[in-house]
Amino acid sequence: MADARPVGVFDSGLGGLTVVRELLQKLPGESLVYLGDTARVPYGTKSSDTVVRYSLSCARFLLRHDVKMIMVACNTASAAALEALETRLTVPVLGAVGPGARAAATHSRGGHIGVFGTSGTVRSEAYVRAIRALRPDAAVAAVACPLLVPLAEEGWIEGDVPRLVIRRYMDELCALDPAIDTLVLGCTHYPVLRAPIAAVASEVLGREVAVVDSATAMASDAQARLGEMGLLGESGAPGGARFFFTDRAQTREVGRRFLGAPLGSVEETDLDPS
Amino acid sequence: MADARPVGVFDSGLGGLTVVRELLQKLPGESLVYLGDTARVPYGTKSSDTVVRYSLSCARFLLRHDVKMIMVACNTASAAALEALETRLTVPVLGAVGPGARAAATHSRGGHIGVFGTSGTVRSEAYVRAIRALRPDAAVAAVACPLLVPLAEEGWIEGDVPRLVIRRYMDELCALDPAIDTLVLGCTHYPVLRAPIAAVASEVLGREVAVVDSATAMASDAQARLGEMGLLGESGAPGGARFFFTDRAQTREVGRRFLGAPLGSVEETDLDPS
Repeated sequence: MADARPVGVFDSGLGGLTVVRELLQKLPGESLVYLGDTARVPYGTKSSDTVVRYSLSCARFLLRHDVKMIMVACNTASAAALEALETRLTVPVLGAVGPGARAAATHSRGGHIGVFGTSGTVRSEAYVRAIRALRPDAAVAAVACPLLVPLAEEGWIEGDVPRLVIRRYMDELCALDPAIDTLVLGCTHYPVLRAPIAAVASEVLGREVAVVDSATAMASDAQARLGEMGLLGESGAPGGARFFFTDRAQTREVGRRFLGAPLGSVEETDLDPS
Repeated sequence: MADARPVGVFDSGLGGLTVVRELLQKLPGESLVYLGDTARVPYGTKSSDTVVRYSLSCARFLLRHDVKMIMVACNTASAAALEALETRLTVPVLGAVGPGARAAATHSRGGHIGVFGTSGTVRSEAYVRAIRALRPDAAVAAVACPLLVPLAEEGWIEGDVPRLVIRRYMDELCALDPAIDTLVLGCTHYPVLRAPIAAVASEVLGREVAVVDSATAMASDAQARLGEMGLLGESGAPGGARFFFTDRAQTREVGRRFLGAPLGSVEETDLDPS
């Protein structure tokens, strides 16, 4: 009773490939269809109305590929549009915020949780609500980190520049709550900066800080959810991924950094012809 | 015979407000209609096909406001779409690259000209062609500087982070041509970083470097062009500007940094309903 339909994943751009990377490892038998809305990236600086509109058009594209589940790899889109997507779609929808929040709530010893995210994600307070729903005693402090996306895309992940930028955001977080014991990387771009973020976190906060990211958490949740719903693909099937982008520029060079491997074939698509 | 119709200015987002700032000073009697495509910003990382499509939809919006001239404040859009706009529109179109190139060709003593721009602008080689057309002996070296836009938008214009980021791009430029005597700020975001860019330029290159920006050059060219064509507004007329954005988020806080003054009223518009 295996379900051979693909799993659909969409993101504002290339960051969501960190989720695909985890999925390929965890669910090698599943076929994946990835859509990066690179013609309109980033979502993180835009209003929630705009993000909802863009997310619905991404989801419609994936449904045309007969997907059995839609994963919203973009934290900003998850924060703004998950409810709108769940209301309108008949396939299950998995966001990034829920899995990230659950991982943080589970990992945190003292319940002092920090969140790094885009302006849109932080403004939405989606992580604060999701973590408190799981752990009502938790103290959650969130900081918007707009420079981290271009640093990650440029591959500037070592040296003084990323260290000083991260340091500035970490000081801001520490000023909000100096007792932070767990940090959520609440944007799919950030895992490539995981090492310098973890290093600066323990330097500024003076203790070991658990760093959790939504990409890893999403892959685990997808596996569990597909299993529960009887939607897993055939084990031992070939799997693999198709990659669609609304704009092809830089997808290969930059995408490779997030996927951790070359992308193979890359297809361009126009979501809103005008 | 004054022409009271407004001048239209469009940009991918908020950076073009540096052009409005110059226009308000130089042409206080003109009415301006500004459109920032903040729902799809930035253009600088996207392919030229996408940028042409977006630019045409921006121009169509301005034409609905009966503008007498269209200024393309975004260097990326100028580099990719100026020809397409000139071919399709009956009003005069003024780009950012031409005025910036002319200012550089005029200022440079030794003919060694550097350009900082977005990936799209640098990839297009529009500045190289425009400067060489005016000064065939010039040596032009261009470097893409993706981190400068978010630094400018965040207002991180002082201290170690901008200095180190600029230093990295300047080292790259110096490796291409150590004899640079003039630097073009080929993106409307960059003028707010003018002081640290000028400081790092003379530090790295070991001499005084003339820094020219397309915003100032565009305002001078607009004045000349309107005069030549008999399209100037009534002198002593009230003038002023209307500001439209495709996404309202952050327009006030960030826009203020580029305009150098509060924006007054801000209107939202949807260019491509879907």
